[in-house]
Amino acid sequence: MHPALRKHFEELVKLTDAEYEHIAPCYHLKKFKKHSILLQPGDVVNHEYFVLKGLLKTFTIDDSGKEHILQFSMENWWVSDYMALHTNGKSSFIIQCLEDVELLYISFDDRQRLCDELHQFERFCRLKITSGFVSMQKRVMALMKNDAQSRYQQLLEQYPSLFQRVPKAMIAAYLGVSRETLSRLHV
Amino acid sequence: MHPALRKHFEELVKLTDAEYEHIAPCYHLKKFKKHSILLQPGDVVNHEYFVLKGLLKTFTIDDSGKEHILQFSMENWWVSDYMALHTNGKSSFIIQCLEDVELLYISFDDRQRLCDELHQFERFCRLKITSGFVSMQKRVMALMKNDAQSRYQQLLEQYPSLFQRVPKAMIAAYLGVSRETLSRLHV
Repeated sequence: MHPALRKHFEELVKLTDAEYEHIAPCYHLKKFKKHSILLQPGDVVNHEYFVLKGLLKTFTIDDSGKEHILQFSMENWWVSDYMALHTNGKSSFIIQCLEDVELLYISFDDRQRLCDELHQFERFCRLKITSGFVSMQKRVMALMKNDAQSRYQQLLEQYPSLFQRVPKAMIAAYLGVSRETLSRLHV
Repeated sequence: MHPALRKHFEELVKLTDAEYEHIAPCYHLKKFKKHSILLQPGDVVNHEYFVLKGLLKTFTIDDSGKEHILQFSMENWWVSDYMALHTNGKSSFIIQCLEDVELLYISFDDRQRLCDELHQFERFCRLKITSGFVSMQKRVMALMKNDAQSRYQQLLEQYPSLFQRVPKAMIAAYLGVSRETLSRLHV
């Protein structure tokens, strides 16, 4: 088992060494160069990815060509198109590497099998997705309630390192504001 | 076990009659009159609620007195302040009954215990929260990407009955648009 992944599990659940040995072969290492596309609209989604190194963005492009960023994913984050993954459907997002990236990926079938076989593995999945749910709720409330300035401030406080790693235009596409609005903020 | 709740579980997981008998006493019936408040900011959150009958809204009020609705919850929906529930924290939302409401509630401790004791119960919780996560992702994308008209249309297609049950002002507070904008839409 990759030590970063094992550490990540150990933060939430108790698994024995034998169980880690059982889980380990389901995760496979893959490296991607900066700008590589992991998923694009229409792709069948059957993997979940754990980021060991690097940064990715999950986004869509609307009819007018404007980019909308759902998520940035950095070290120790999970990424996939979860709607497609759980409905056996096709991706509606683009997932792209913003840096050279190292990932561990697991197939949906292996993930389901591990959920069946190991109660603690299912617990881990439940707790992770619960955190994701709560984050998305916060994001919905921030989009409705907060102006661009406070959304920017909130993101800066939560993920200061992100601002060193991605250009301003992408921060704007994540916050749901125009580049012009962003450049007018007191940042 | 209340038949509506049992049916709800049966849609996602396989539990034996004995297991349903084990789960049943953890859920308690409670009735609320229209306008009752289930939770308010600062309340300790230690219950999750399953709606048998009626409609509720989860919302906050900002400093300017404006209401922002995170969620409507109707029959067969779960409702709580999940961030507070999972961090043993205090509510940052108000949950209010928009109609006379009948609920089944479970304490956080009983829910945790059932997750420990019954793998299938934990599976159920994982699948439910996964659906919630995907819905919230869709909502984030809609708030960033779609104009008020398409967000209205999307809500109308997804929950037509909601439009019979709540006033326009609340639909506006859910969609993140002003009442004036909503009244200008072709609806």
